[in-house]
Amino acid sequence: MRWSQMHIPTLREDPADADAPSHRLLLRAGYIRQLMAGHYSLLPIAVLVRSRVVAIIREEMARIGSQEFILPAMHPAEIWQRTGRWEGMGQEMFRLRDRKGADIALGMTHEEIFTTLALELSSYKQLPQMWYQFQTKFRDEPRPKAGLMRTREFTMKDSYSFDLDASGLDTSFDKHHDAYVRIFQRLGIPAIPVEASSGSMGGSASTEFMCPSEAGEDFVVHCTSCGYAANVEKATSRLPVVTDAPGLQAPERFDTPGARTIADLAERYDAPGERQVKTLVYVVDGKLTLVLLRGDHALMEQKLNDALAARELRPAHPEEIREALGASPGSLGGVGVTDLPIIADEALRGRTDMFTGANTDDVHLRGVSVERDITVGRWADLREVAAGEECPTCAEPLQVQRAIEVGHIFKLGYKYAEALGANVLGPDGNRIPVIMGSYGIGVERAMAAIVEGHHDDKGIVWPLSVAPFAVAVVIAQPKDEQTVALGEQVYEQLRAAGVDVIVDDRNERPGVKFRDVELVGIPFRITVGKKALSEGAVEFTERATGETRAVACADLVEEVRKAITSHG
Amino acid sequence: MRWSQMHIPTLREDPADADAPSHRLLLRAGYIRQLMAGHYSLLPIAVLVRSRVVAIIREEMARIGSQEFILPAMHPAEIWQRTGRWEGMGQEMFRLRDRKGADIALGMTHEEIFTTLALELSSYKQLPQMWYQFQTKFRDEPRPKAGLMRTREFTMKDSYSFDLDASGLDTSFDKHHDAYVRIFQRLGIPAIPVEASSGSMGGSASTEFMCPSEAGEDFVVHCTSCGYAANVEKATSRLPVVTDAPGLQAPERFDTPGARTIADLAERYDAPGERQVKTLVYVVDGKLTLVLLRGDHALMEQKLNDALAARELRPAHPEEIREALGASPGSLGGVGVTDLPIIADEALRGRTDMFTGANTDDVHLRGVSVERDITVGRWADLREVAAGEECPTCAEPLQVQRAIEVGHIFKLGYKYAEALGANVLGPDGNRIPVIMGSYGIGVERAMAAIVEGHHDDKGIVWPLSVAPFAVAVVIAQPKDEQTVALGEQVYEQLRAAGVDVIVDDRNERPGVKFRDVELVGIPFRITVGKKALSEGAVEFTERATGETRAVACADLVEEVRKAITSHG
Repeated sequence: MRWSQMHIPTLREDPADADAPSHRLLLRAGYIRQLMAGHYSLLPIAVLVRSRVVAIIREEMARIGSQEFILPAMHPAEIWQRTGRWEGMGQEMFRLRDRKGADIALGMTHEEIFTTLALELSSYKQLPQMWYQFQTKFRDEPRPKAGLMRTREFTMKDSYSFDLDASGLDTSFDKHHDAYVRIFQRLGIPAIPVEASSGSMGGSASTEFMCPSEAGEDFVVHCTSCGYAANVEKATSRLPVVTDAPGLQAPERFDTPGARTIADLAERYDAPGERQVKTLVYVVDGKLTLVLLRGDHALMEQKLNDALAARELRPAHPEEIREALGASPGSLGGVGVTDLPIIADEALRGRTDMFTGANTDDVHLRGVSVERDITVGRWADLREVAAGEECPTCAEPLQVQRAIEVGHIFKLGYKYAEALGANVLGPDGNRIPVIMGSYGIGVERAMAAIVEGHHDDKGIVWPLSVAPFAVAVVIAQPKDEQTVALGEQVYEQLRAAGVDVIVDDRNERPGVKFRDVELVGIPFRITVGKKALSEGAVEFTERATGETRAVACADLVEEVRKAITSHG
Repeated sequence: MRWSQMHIPTLREDPADADAPSHRLLLRAGYIRQLMAGHYSLLPIAVLVRSRVVAIIREEMARIGSQEFILPAMHPAEIWQRTGRWEGMGQEMFRLRDRKGADIALGMTHEEIFTTLALELSSYKQLPQMWYQFQTKFRDEPRPKAGLMRTREFTMKDSYSFDLDASGLDTSFDKHHDAYVRIFQRLGIPAIPVEASSGSMGGSASTEFMCPSEAGEDFVVHCTSCGYAANVEKATSRLPVVTDAPGLQAPERFDTPGARTIADLAERYDAPGERQVKTLVYVVDGKLTLVLLRGDHALMEQKLNDALAARELRPAHPEEIREALGASPGSLGGVGVTDLPIIADEALRGRTDMFTGANTDDVHLRGVSVERDITVGRWADLREVAAGEECPTCAEPLQVQRAIEVGHIFKLGYKYAEALGANVLGPDGNRIPVIMGSYGIGVERAMAAIVEGHHDDKGIVWPLSVAPFAVAVVIAQPKDEQTVALGEQVYEQLRAAGVDVIVDDRNERPGVKFRDVELVGIPFRITVGKKALSEGAVEFTERATGETRAVACADLVEEVRKAITSHG
């Protein structure tokens, strides 16, 4: 390729409103342009990178025997209604009506649609099947952000497995797990597999692949000692045992004028956070629900969501709370409440001599024994793990780190097969539902994650595996005929040798060209200038290290091959 | 690949409701499945064919220097509003609102969006640019039909050219023209370039690539003598000159009880069709309009649409007609009508002594001189050319043939650049708008067109260039160890030689396997059976001809290579 004939609109300045390095650099280096919030055009060099990412994923899918499909992006509402997700997906699903008034969903994921194809499987002998596609997904994200990191329209490689039984699913899941490990390794993404919430996907277990990064939107809890790692949405920790006094015979009301927070109560009434019961009120699928936690703990909403298998969940409004409990947030409690469901965090089990609100403004209770005095309908792990708490496995202190979710694999179980009727004849002649898994990688987000991990103050530093070009030949003096001739010769030699090479033949100063090659992030630069003409040697510069050395023209192809092999 | 491990759900019977051969065969051979009307899933072997079609198109785009992009499928309404196409596209455009209430279009084509990227071009020195993408288009077709032929969701390769002036556009247009000729040739589609209407695209000229086929929805008018070819939406013909009597001083009313059609009038009142003025009433962008044609001519709606640059156009309802003209269809005419726009076909120019309706039920006029008696506001070519009429170029009889539109290329002119402000600094330092072209190929429709031209009563007969596999190795006796071993060896040899090969290793009878290989349409079949074991020779069968010959195992790779080369 010739730089002069490619549209690579690099920008001199950092674009405004682009904080994440990948967002800033992909814009600045001429990879992407925003059409509207959450929707980006990929320019030619981005298409090259994307095609390399896709090729790597495709190879690894083929290696585990997965077959490539392409399914529609538009789905009839009816199929989503049968699994309950037409309602369940809420506002995140783009919906429209066609000219005949039929309700249509734009696919945010394809469990339902792939399952309709699995209806053609008739015998256990056809299992296992692993099916995947590269396809555009549409999600009406509330807050698209950070360039390609969180968009409303993106390419996903989504796979689906269909097995006869749980051990078959384990095998398909493990194959994908291992394929994902290889994929991220080849992409240069230091992803770590972590336990995760399955969210709206349902199913029994899921693993996220997390790339540690300050630009990430997720938090991973992990233990450097034993390797425990989980999304904070799912993570647990060990808590030191609290020894309570037995407390009172019954809770006792006391006035707490102006004390509205955990801290107020701790400070003024000798009630440390760990001795308080914090009472939150949520609306879960339309139903007011009390959520109890230790005073010094924070609620992890996803855990609440998962525990209650909620479709929709939000904090209650103050008016809703006052109407139900007769008090404002700050004086709420579960004692005596029998007409609302109460869910409590495991850390409150067995606790006595506790403080909590009395459902009267500026009044609290003391001497509360949680299990004696509160009608807890459900116990669950609801609290957010904090850095420094003890690892649930080895008791060493946990760390919490920002990360980008680059992949997510799910054991789905029977949810979709049962809802849509995907059965096969089993070995015993009876029909049994297939058991499913699903597995996803966001292609453009993977590109962003690579840039997050591979850049410096000069620009992007692509790993060779995904770079738009392996080598840029820079003609330093484009007005000098001999330099141009030699540059063109070097370019042709490398092309003939099968090297992905671009020649910077623009009529620009060397400094401009060097800056662009660095910004765009091409792994190797060959500079053809006066020295080449006089000494028969070109400059060979490695983008990652900045190291430059002279290479004799005669040895160049061989040296480039070596460099590529050693970086492969 | 192994047949036993690929999902190729062939059907024993022809599927119901699939008339076009491509629809029937792609379903039956396990290439596609319908999700809902106009939306198909591509199964694994279809993905292989599609990837080969895409690769051929991509190569030819690269050859003319076009650069690959990927643009969003979702567009803000605002950009379409600026070119007037938000309204102009009517019901064919899928529209939705996002969670914030913003209007969004699903891209049916990308002139607007590519033009927004061209806003970054600043100088004539950056021109020409040719940009393309492979991308999903969404169109709310009123009548999706014939499988992949007309869908609501499909992959389009759409290109856009940006030039400094009309001669630059001519060059870009010609490059695409030639690339399309090569593409269709390589795909095995006997496409012919024909003059076409530009429709909602606007612009000065367009050429369609038409594949003659009974399954087509378009009609091509062509002359086997001089090569004239045009879509019937655009085609013209020469008409024999009609010599009229001078007629009456003024039109004369006469009663025509029960005569409601051109034929009635011809039969009962000695008024042959060519002496009648047929009066149609249309609603054009909300405005009632009279459309006049010779009695024996049919209206070509697209020509009316193009002549009036209409956004929306439909025949008026009988009530609307009666309210405006006071009569029913059958007794309508333009004489004396001054409050409605009247557009007349060129064939009526200068005609005298004509018959037409009197705008009173069961009354007509005779002795009408069209230009004297009717206030024609606009003359245009509106009639549909019929087979047998004279070629406009050489006067030989024209033929009319059904065809599939497989490509369409447009000279767009300045419409989009001016509406969206795509200017560059010209050589003289003044800003001038760029001139554009756009060029499209429907990928899945091309697949269907290939099948329409390449099938027989046994199934599909893919051209080698796009076949999912070049060779199928059929193990005839899958229960015989030695046959299996030899079959596997042949398979491995061909794989090692870089041949796209699938081995049919299923535990099925040879007849089942042969039928499937034929139905799926794999160009070459190698049968490994008892003969191979005893004589060291396999059967080599060519799908297109059915010819079978014995090939010694030792020569097989070489023979396959030869066969592939001679078909390439």
